Amino acid sequence: MRKIFQLYFAFFLLFNCGELIPNPDDNAQNIKREEPKIERTNDFAIVIHGGAGTIKKENMSAEKEAEYKAKLEEAIRVGHAILKNGGSSLDAVEKTINIMEDSPLFNAGKGAVFTNAGTNELDASIMDGKTLNSGASAGTKTVKNPINLARRIMDDSPHVMMAGDGADSYAKEQGLEIVSPEYFFTEGRLKSLERAKDREKVEMDHDDNQKAAFYDADIKDSKYGTVGCVALDKSGNLAAGTSTGGMTNKRFGRVGDTPIIGAGTYANNATCAVSGTGWGEYFIRGTVAYDISAMMEYKGSTLEEASVEVIQKKLTNLGGTGGIIAVDKNGNMMMEFNTAGMYRATMDDKGELNIEIYSKKQ
Amino acid sequence: MRKIFQLYFAFFLLFNCGELIPNPDDNAQNIKREEPKIERTNDFAIVIHGGAGTIKKENMSAEKEAEYKAKLEEAIRVGHAILKNGGSSLDAVEKTINIMEDSPLFNAGKGAVFTNAGTNELDASIMDGKTLNSGASAGTKTVKNPINLARRIMDDSPHVMMAGDGADSYAKEQGLEIVSPEYFFTEGRLKSLERAKDREKVEMDHDDNQKAAFYDADIKDSKYGTVGCVALDKSGNLAAGTSTGGMTNKRFGRVGDTPIIGAGTYANNATCAVSGTGWGEYFIRGTVAYDISAMMEYKGSTLEEASVEVIQKKLTNLGGTGGIIAVDKNGNMMMEFNTAGMYRATMDDKGELNIEIYSKKQ
Repeated sequence: MRKIFQLYFAFFLLFNCGELIPNPDDNAQNIKREEPKIERTNDFAIVIHGGAGTIKKENMSAEKEAEYKAKLEEAIRVGHAILKNGGSSLDAVEKTINIMEDSPLFNAGKGAVFTNAGTNELDASIMDGKTLNSGASAGTKTVKNPINLARRIMDDSPHVMMAGDGADSYAKEQGLEIVSPEYFFTEGRLKSLERAKDREKVEMDHDDNQKAAFYDADIKDSKYGTVGCVALDKSGNLAAGTSTGGMTNKRFGRVGDTPIIGAGTYANNATCAVSGTGWGEYFIRGTVAYDISAMMEYKGSTLEEASVEVIQKKLTNLGGTGGIIAVDKNGNMMMEFNTAGMYRATMDDKGELNIEIYSKKQ
Repeated sequence: MRKIFQLYFAFFLLFNCGELIPNPDDNAQNIKREEPKIERTNDFAIVIHGGAGTIKKENMSAEKEAEYKAKLEEAIRVGHAILKNGGSSLDAVEKTINIMEDSPLFNAGKGAVFTNAGTNELDASIMDGKTLNSGASAGTKTVKNPINLARRIMDDSPHVMMAGDGADSYAKEQGLEIVSPEYFFTEGRLKSLERAKDREKVEMDHDDNQKAAFYDADIKDSKYGTVGCVALDKSGNLAAGTSTGGMTNKRFGRVGDTPIIGAGTYANNATCAVSGTGWGEYFIRGTVAYDISAMMEYKGSTLEEASVEVIQKKLTNLGGTGGIIAVDKNGNMMMEFNTAGMYRATMDDKGELNIEIYSKKQ
């Protein structure tokens, strides 16, 4: 009999069920154990990105680097102040993105890249983690701040997504700030388009107009350019937003992942808020933003585990490049990417600011 | 010492780790146990839908019912023959959807509903479960069969999604069949638009142009109308496709769930293929099609469990209505919806055909 007990005991240890053994004292006295309280890492928190791509230290001047960092800081401080004062994560996301949209440094709003037709067509989306309500616009040409249009579509229309001229009309009807298409023209982006077209001519016999992006880091970055923000507010509400000027030299009304809820943007109070930046086609195929949330909800992954798995394994195996920023319901923050760099910053409830550009592997 | 063993043994049983105990004989002889073989329910299978909505038996004439059933049968038999002959699930999905697109009975292709501007703007998407490649088009006005354009975008372009005039241009450049916008005009759909507009005038003081859809079952159905197909082929490859004429009286370039990968369409050989039909805004917010796949992948749910959970709980709690058709990698088929009816059919590898229209609760 003792031998059998020893055998079971051995298997017991083998299967490592050790943590299931209750304290005999607790058991004897029938003391009800309290559920372990999950401590929020941060009461509120905000993370932003300004695009991921071939951002290499060797190609960046000290002035340019300082300029990017200053703008990232300006943007994140706007959202942080809103959160600190008890404002909503949605407001923090919208106002923070506005700063980046208004800066020609990033491929969103002013500074948007040019399409093949020499126009600027902008996309944006926003999602409310409390209600799962969301708004998205694709291919607008006259809306100064596309993230505001996305917010308006979410709040005041029965729809989630509007595209093209119709979206511009709605913005006008709603009294959002309308600008002439020239507002978006910037010298730098026009040169990128010219270079992309020149490259295309050279590459014509390869019949692959995408290749230009792979030879010219600047074009490649333009292709990837996006701005985004995720935030957790003091009420525990999560929000995510993303805004972009799309892809240099794009044709045929191509739509990337930015205005696609679940691909480029996702927020759910039960899990996390995510904004992506990268090669949009792969983010759509991988349903990247929602995938991180689903892995947390269904598999019990932490935000870090889910972000690393989705970006470093699933997206990478698919052949996709880019990154995400995310914050979970407990205020844990993540910035995960598989490119050389990603313009990014975090700011927690203690006001600790962290701004980075390059991959730590560089 | 023996007492301690007894204590551990008691806890061991208490925590029901019984199933972890290996058979001592197996252990002694080091016999490797075989993994249980998962039998495929069907070697190949196909499921279609022609839209979900307020489809009530009391409002349907015997002729109309026969007409719908005949067209559903014609469509599914096309795809079934392809699968039976060893063809790909992608071909089966595309050709089956073509039959429904070409029929004025369904809100896709010919028979598409009218926008507020009196135009027909069509959406479609397709996904390959083997590669996770996908294609989608939104708001085209001249492409006879939008599902063919979605397939071409997937197969021959570097993009996943194209919208508006750009998508029409790509279709023309690629030599797909182009028709004049009048091709899509049908008397019945024009009347639906007129009724929706009349209702809108009446409802004007409520400032909610969506209400028309809730009072007029015919308009409501037009709103929901979509066609879709999912298939598993003999090689084990899954595919899903969806095509729609959108929403009656739609404005502002509204985009629904049909061209959104993850919302209206999803396929992954590791899990399942799904096509949705319903109130698109809710399908986007719920990332419905991918959610079913994610629940299977991360939670180990069966296709049935995941479909019921997503449609009857998650979508319903969100306030959304509609349904999905799905097939998993083992050939299990599902048709789940929370509306009065859904035009639908299944056909398995034995050639057993099942066509239904109404909910079993009617």
